[in-house]
Amino acid sequence: MIIVMRAGASREEIDNVVVRVERDGFKVHLSAGAERTIIGLIGDDRPLDKQLYEVLPGVEKAMAVLKPFKLASREFSAADTLVTVKGVSIGGTQVVLMAGPCAVESRGQLLETAHAVKAAGAQMLRGGAFKPRSSPYSFQGLGEDALKILAEAREQTGLPVITEIMTPEHLPMVCDYVDMLQIGARNMQNYELLKGVGRTTLPVLLKRGLMATMEELLMSAEYILAAGNRQVVLCERGIRTFEKYTRNTNGYQCHPGAQAPDAFAGDA
Amino acid sequence: MIIVMRAGASREEIDNVVVRVERDGFKVHLSAGAERTIIGLIGDDRPLDKQLYEVLPGVEKAMAVLKPFKLASREFSAADTLVTVKGVSIGGTQVVLMAGPCAVESRGQLLETAHAVKAAGAQMLRGGAFKPRSSPYSFQGLGEDALKILAEAREQTGLPVITEIMTPEHLPMVCDYVDMLQIGARNMQNYELLKGVGRTTLPVLLKRGLMATMEELLMSAEYILAAGNRQVVLCERGIRTFEKYTRNTNGYQCHPGAQAPDAFAGDA
Amino acid sequence: MIIVMRAGASREEIDNVVVRVERDGFKVHLSAGAERTIIGLIGDDRPLDKQLYEVLPGVEKAMAVLKPFKLASREFSAADTLVTVKGVSIGGTQVVLMAGPCAVESRGQLLETAHAVKAAGAQMLRGGAFKPRSSPYSFQGLGEDALKILAEAREQTGLPVITEIMTPEHLPMVCDYVDMLQIGARNMQNYELLKGVGRTTLPVLLKRGLMATMEELLMSAEYILAAGNRQVVLCERGIRTFEKYTRNTNGYQCHPGAQAPDAFAGDA
Amino acid sequence: MIIVMRAGASREEIDNVVVRVERDGFKVHLSAGAERTIIGLIGDDRPLDKQLYEVLPGVEKAMAVLKPFKLASREFSAADTLVTVKGVSIGGTQVVLMAGPCAVESRGQLLETAHAVKAAGAQMLRGGAFKPRSSPYSFQGLGEDALKILAEAREQTGLPVITEIMTPEHLPMVCDYVDMLQIGARNMQNYELLKGVGRTTLPVLLKRGLMATMEELLMSAEYILAAGNRQVVLCERGIRTFEKYTRNTNGYQCHPGAQAPDAFAGDA
Repeated sequence: MIIVMRAGASREEIDNVVVRVERDGFKVHLSAGAERTIIGLIGDDRPLDKQLYEVLPGVEKAMAVLKPFKLASREFSAADTLVTVKGVSIGGTQVVLMAGPCAVESRGQLLETAHAVKAAGAQMLRGGAFKPRSSPYSFQGLGEDALKILAEAREQTGLPVITEIMTPEHLPMVCDYVDMLQIGARNMQNYELLKGVGRTTLPVLLKRGLMATMEELLMSAEYILAAGNRQVVLCERGIRTFEKYTRNTNGYQCHPGAQAPDAFAGDA
Repeated sequence: MIIVMRAGASREEIDNVVVRVERDGFKVHLSAGAERTIIGLIGDDRPLDKQLYEVLPGVEKAMAVLKPFKLASREFSAADTLVTVKGVSIGGTQVVLMAGPCAVESRGQLLETAHAVKAAGAQMLRGGAFKPRSSPYSFQGLGEDALKILAEAREQTGLPVITEIMTPEHLPMVCDYVDMLQIGARNMQNYELLKGVGRTTLPVLLKRGLMATMEELLMSAEYILAAGNRQVVLCERGIRTFEKYTRNTNGYQCHPGAQAPDAFAGDA
Repeated sequence: MIIVMRAGASREEIDNVVVRVERDGFKVHLSAGAERTIIGLIGDDRPLDKQLYEVLPGVEKAMAVLKPFKLASREFSAADTLVTVKGVSIGGTQVVLMAGPCAVESRGQLLETAHAVKAAGAQMLRGGAFKPRSSPYSFQGLGEDALKILAEAREQTGLPVITEIMTPEHLPMVCDYVDMLQIGARNMQNYELLKGVGRTTLPVLLKRGLMATMEELLMSAEYILAAGNRQVVLCERGIRTFEKYTRNTNGYQCHPGAQAPDAFAGDA
Repeated sequence: MIIVMRAGASREEIDNVVVRVERDGFKVHLSAGAERTIIGLIGDDRPLDKQLYEVLPGVEKAMAVLKPFKLASREFSAADTLVTVKGVSIGGTQVVLMAGPCAVESRGQLLETAHAVKAAGAQMLRGGAFKPRSSPYSFQGLGEDALKILAEAREQTGLPVITEIMTPEHLPMVCDYVDMLQIGARNMQNYELLKGVGRTTLPVLLKRGLMATMEELLMSAEYILAAGNRQVVLCERGIRTFEKYTRNTNGYQCHPGAQAPDAFAGDA
């Protein structure tokens, strides 16, 4: 972290920040610029909240130098991550298509769809058993009945099955039936749920929240990774903007000269 | 709902939509405009998804006429809602201040703060026992120990106590200690949690998500109200925008000629 | 336009709106729904501001049925638009690449670049003579000298030349040198400039503003089209969102089942 | 500016950046942290574009330390700025209300309104002579006739008059009639217009663009200030967000512990 003092900060204000930084266990690197003094922290300051320093007298702002995530970073694991779901490998050169209905509505609907998506070339089958619906009056999913139908479809088609998990309480039941867990956009920062799936052995598809930054997405992946589950696949599903012409806006875009962001690499 | 046909939609396309609407249980009101035909649905079409009609051939768009929420609406309950927490009345002419530390860090810290906020005029005490932190490496809260400390502070000061609830599994424990439940911004669309607090008898403070529209906030309130708990207080805590000069941007603003939105009224 | 009355609007309120609509020159189509009365306007109400009706007593909201643009619409001209710049055809099946430096900095720099982009396959040469810079202390461009250099590069390479125009006062000078005019994102709603380029005979590349909706982009195209210039090419250059990982976010995205939007079609 | 090298950047990559920085005329301050090397620039690096360094091999990111604006900064002029328009003082303890119709539509309408707003306590009269309308088919303003009517209203009421200026070509005419110039939100980054009003002697009201950050607003003020006109008043008129319940969202908000931002201070 780098702490930028205000122009004209007094000697005492600077000393006060230095004392505080050292008390927090870091070495200090002082640099007097043309207009401002800059205080650098030496050491792993990831767990620190920069607001702790920004409230001190004479401080203009604090800026993070290190990325807040570790396990989700290319620095921790430089190679591309491969996640394998019953023989289907995600993260390699092949694009994997997971297809199926938004919600499992009936046995007939799901089985028919499963055979159709397999015939069309999809490698995994998805279908909602528990549905996050903005209205309490909308269909909320068939629950365990849907899970049984999904398992039957897997048996008939051989396609591995993925479904959304909405609360840690459902984990034992859901893990009995499916091959991969999905965290929906609305639950991207449901930390108890992230910890819960982090303790399972199933691969996890983590969807980006509508208003989540890439860094927040990676921090949510870090929750799962830190709990022990290293099989995390990130899903960009678009962000919310002022534009309503399309439902969401694709949030991922390379710009000239950019290297591949850590966002879609490493263990995440 | 109003369905707008494309300019030049054929007789068959119009008939097809009419048949579908009638099959869905609604009466049809047809209006041939100068350039487009408009099909109005008569009846309570709130549970309908307008995308069901927008995919039909010849349809340009569907527009909702009714608001999707009911219990959270002024139309259901025109009077201002009063929620009472151990004698403290929220929603009347008095502004209620709830104060306290972000997290309960120790008995000493919380008790000292509790007496200080009471002396300063606050009417309720808040403090986090379970903390939603973007990093898994940050302090996650003291859990039940914090709840005990909060209860002790209430005894000493007489201030009712509010704390954040993060997962339905914690509900029985948390309800034993506190007087009001808080749903944090990141969990505003954690529907299992909303249903869970909706089944309790404690008043609920529902915070607006960073990415949530007013309508979505009211729909989340509707989840709690529909589950039987009519004591919902909405909390505007700012939305996320492109501007990073401030952490959040205040999302609530009256504009000239506007009536008070339903958003902060009725049972919600 | 459709005017939705509040639930419980009185007979007088409804009559008042009807009288107003008829006075504004439109026929009325009345529809009494289960909960609300709806008043439809019959006729071309594009120039009307819906706020005129939304302030009337008993009105809940007004919703536009017609698109506000005409010449920029597929309904006006269903075929794809082709814009030809000195033999280079834009809008057909071939993707046209326009390349060159952000700003013309010197004769040597521009000529070298021009030959390089031609060798790499670009079909047009771009280069800024007048630069919109957020800081008044940054390089503002070489002005007419840059235009002369661009013209020389065209002579040497045969590539048609495009440059940004920032104010109507520069139009006579700039049109003498270049083959296509560019309106930058910051000037997308500089209406005097739009009218100005609309009166020229040069093709125009109109860039989408950072915070402009597709509809606003099309309305800006409509300004140019309505002034008589039908050679408008739209340029999606990304919109501003909360995400700072990338400089802009690509604002255009097809969603399942969507037809091609009017945005990138018709005369615009 | 501070340049953060990637973890594992080579000695050569670091040396290369140092050479480049020194060639650009700055002293270098090197700091080897636990994981990364940081290169600080010493000197006034405001005109530098940080992307120049971010493209160099081994560089992770560059972060600005100095604010990009000078004249608009509290550091340049610590005292609150007072702008006086014909005896009306803006920026002191009194809130100044400027009122009047969106557009001057007729002599009768404007004179009647002028007397009404004076009677209601407003201290300045506003009215549009040239209107920035999103549709080319909407009323575009009465032009010079409106300016004459505004001048007559000033004579009758004694209220100073403000109107919007849309293009530098109109400056000589508009300055003849009014007491203060307004730059509308859509023209906040119309730099030729900013330079134009910067060369006049009239006070300027600069409205924040829908998509503009505070820093960009201040940079636009800097354009006017740098051109010699020090009478700039900033106007927060709301920003565009995903929320459509209100037309705009108020973009200015103090947060706990924040000092007054430079944004509404200094010469701007």
